[in-house]
Amino acid sequence: MVSKEPVTGPADLALLYTPGVAEPCLEIAARPEAVYEYTGKGNLVAVVSDGSAVLGLGDIGPEAGLPVMEGKALLFKEFAGIDAVPLVLGTKDPAAIVAAVLAIAPSFGGINLEDIAAPRCFEIETALQAALDIPVFHDDQHGTAVVVLAALTNAAKKVGKELTSLKVVVNGAGAAGTAISRLLLSGGIRDLTVCDRAGILTAGDPALNGAMESLAALTNPRKLAGNLAVALVGADVFIGVSAPRILTAAHVRAMAPSAVVFAMANPEPEIFPQEALAAGAALVATGRSDFPNQINNVLAFPGIFRGALTVRARRISEGMKLAASRAIAALAGSGPEGLDAIVPSVFHRELTFQVAVAVASAAVVDGVASLPLDRSAIIQGVQNGLVEAGAHRTLRTRHFTGSSGATARRVQERIGEGLVRLGVLTEERCHEVLSFQASGDKRLFGEIALALGFLDFDTLIDYLRRPGGGV
Amino acid sequence: MVSKEPVTGPADLALLYTPGVAEPCLEIAARPEAVYEYTGKGNLVAVVSDGSAVLGLGDIGPEAGLPVMEGKALLFKEFAGIDAVPLVLGTKDPAAIVAAVLAIAPSFGGINLEDIAAPRCFEIETALQAALDIPVFHDDQHGTAVVVLAALTNAAKKVGKELTSLKVVVNGAGAAGTAISRLLLSGGIRDLTVCDRAGILTAGDPALNGAMESLAALTNPRKLAGNLAVALVGADVFIGVSAPRILTAAHVRAMAPSAVVFAMANPEPEIFPQEALAAGAALVATGRSDFPNQINNVLAFPGIFRGALTVRARRISEGMKLAASRAIAALAGSGPEGLDAIVPSVFHRELTFQVAVAVASAAVVDGVASLPLDRSAIIQGVQNGLVEAGAHRTLRTRHFTGSSGATARRVQERIGEGLVRLGVLTEERCHEVLSFQASGDKRLFGEIALALGFLDFDTLIDYLRRPGGGV
Repeated sequence: MVSKEPVTGPADLALLYTPGVAEPCLEIAARPEAVYEYTGKGNLVAVVSDGSAVLGLGDIGPEAGLPVMEGKALLFKEFAGIDAVPLVLGTKDPAAIVAAVLAIAPSFGGINLEDIAAPRCFEIETALQAALDIPVFHDDQHGTAVVVLAALTNAAKKVGKELTSLKVVVNGAGAAGTAISRLLLSGGIRDLTVCDRAGILTAGDPALNGAMESLAALTNPRKLAGNLAVALVGADVFIGVSAPRILTAAHVRAMAPSAVVFAMANPEPEIFPQEALAAGAALVATGRSDFPNQINNVLAFPGIFRGALTVRARRISEGMKLAASRAIAALAGSGPEGLDAIVPSVFHRELTFQVAVAVASAAVVDGVASLPLDRSAIIQGVQNGLVEAGAHRTLRTRHFTGSSGATARRVQERIGEGLVRLGVLTEERCHEVLSFQASGDKRLFGEIALALGFLDFDTLIDYLRRPGGGV
Repeated sequence: MVSKEPVTGPADLALLYTPGVAEPCLEIAARPEAVYEYTGKGNLVAVVSDGSAVLGLGDIGPEAGLPVMEGKALLFKEFAGIDAVPLVLGTKDPAAIVAAVLAIAPSFGGINLEDIAAPRCFEIETALQAALDIPVFHDDQHGTAVVVLAALTNAAKKVGKELTSLKVVVNGAGAAGTAISRLLLSGGIRDLTVCDRAGILTAGDPALNGAMESLAALTNPRKLAGNLAVALVGADVFIGVSAPRILTAAHVRAMAPSAVVFAMANPEPEIFPQEALAAGAALVATGRSDFPNQINNVLAFPGIFRGALTVRARRISEGMKLAASRAIAALAGSGPEGLDAIVPSVFHRELTFQVAVAVASAAVVDGVASLPLDRSAIIQGVQNGLVEAGAHRTLRTRHFTGSSGATARRVQERIGEGLVRLGVLTEERCHEVLSFQASGDKRLFGEIALALGFLDFDTLIDYLRRPGGGV
């Protein structure tokens, strides 16, 4: 936590701490909802993992999973202005995980579960959501599902097919595959077949676990039996959340004309785009940033949580997920990603805002919002929440630490590094600027002031043109 | 969490998140200590409470206790540069609290327990410290004890008595009273008597709980029996961590000449200073900021944690607490608090640094440091850790959000409010500055730039003197 106000004397301390802090405490004790007014709870999300299914790395344990959870927490802040705390757990026992999260929940406005292996992720999410009146969201499941539905909605248009008439094969029946399948069904897909390592999921198969059994009951309407190859014959869409290189050119050739392939295994996809396209696929998406059409959870979770927190949603309803998906789909092709894209860029200026407004509105419609705001109040609330997001800014740093000497120097160096990364300065120029800082070069300072919004561009130019300026 | 670097394009995202983040994950999986290099664990402390003994308010529950924990987290950052997360727990069951804290511990470099009622606070702290190799510190106990010992060391000098020969009465056998008593014994006090509501703690009394029984065995060397009044006859020191107004003028008159009274009940002390002094006390301290000699935990916990984290102490040893106490005592009278003070001001410039260095050094001596650094490395480590502390700065804000328009305006308004609180601007002047901001007033901007270290004072004056400037 960082203070919004400076702490510089006894008066600040008395206010922040005892005795001043007693007042909000008593107010909350008398009126529990006041916790949202007097504390950061309403903008604080726990990013919780047991480190059991981290990226493609598997069960690497809590400490080794911590960098991923920290990265996620940073993305919450950068994209949605949400304060997030990475919490990696020293236990993989579902009951212990549930107990620990229930214990810490009073501090938080929402719980983001992350990289917890299936099938225990289902049990954990269900138990937590049943016990808590704040949203509990397993991003590997639902974030992925929301983005896949958005991408598929646009892909159907691109290939000239009706979304609800698509024959879809989902390969992988873990956390992501299960959630994708369920959301596609909610989104209107009727012919959906799910495969795992053992082949097509079939209702009544005694080898299935509980989660798979209930998925099998909802899918495979043509009662297919066999392996992935059988499922793919004549299919319009392949959605892989499985393993590297398991989709062959022959598989793709057996699909319907204008086939769509989402090969999302990470880092190596089920099939590489060029190979799928060569085998006749009309459109390919992956989980990678170095190919077009990246299916990236960052498209979804920041806006979903921003929207949910804005209306204090008690959970993330099916309607909120569908609304998020529609909002994401609607933005594709209108931003830096180009007209042909089936998903927007994660740096699309409107992304988090549009998703959040759609999600908050759906929460009100679905009756899960503790603050059933009207549309204009939702827009205002989302905008306020995004004030601290970093996605639209050109520079940020929290290291303003000291007014002179070595500390200020370090701050300037870090800012210089940031400007180099942004391409505002070359590395050489940054070095020069920092070297000459002491002797009065004002360009770096001016650029920073501009980025921070203290100066407008004209004033900056004017300032720099004066004696001692860098222009 | 806030990014130290801007997140502005796909390359940043690839580095922060998948696939770039896999590298540190694998490194930590192979070499567990690497978690301290690649993550924020080593600078992250959980401020954990069940809300059962909040300030003088008692058991108000987790949500109502949250403002206190948030305030504490801010103080960690402001005074020690430590990132702290307020975690209020939805359970008061000691086993459940222990289980929850053990579960979340992998994320943290230390655990600060706060406002948990006695006697279960003892059991919780002991169980956690036995299971964890990071420091577990119940500040209400040990932070208070460290500051009391420091204050008493200086008080003894002021009244011309030998510390170790003092007859001391501690009134209150809860969390603070117990820890104070134990640390005073470690610090060399030999004649110590502890009282609670039922009178003097006496070894063998069947009414005592386990914690009180072991305390009784270590204290009351003259085998006194009876109430507080009995204990106080001829005593040199009264230390109250009990209840408002329970110490009378008659009690003070019965004490030895040059009596010392620490009346630390909050917000209303056991006796008000003027009354104690009128009854013959030579020196009075309280827990309040509006009287001289405030016994304030902020004197201790920031430096103790900064020191412990610097050498990755596995626990807070007795030697570390005594070292902290000596460092605090040594600074009294050398800062803004004035020559007569028995404790330094919490805004003493050297405070956190000196306490941290002393604590880290003691951790190495006591063999509890995972990084047994030498003195110069400790000094360097503590200095690095304090770079982000705010105590020595005149202004900070994290709300630099946007480069123009409404957002920048909000930022400027918040900064303006901060400057008003600091006394840099009057409220009227702030309003003027903000009103004229658009038309080119540069003073506020200049003052901010100075505070942030972008400009030195001469350059600021020069800048403001130019056309359009505010001077």
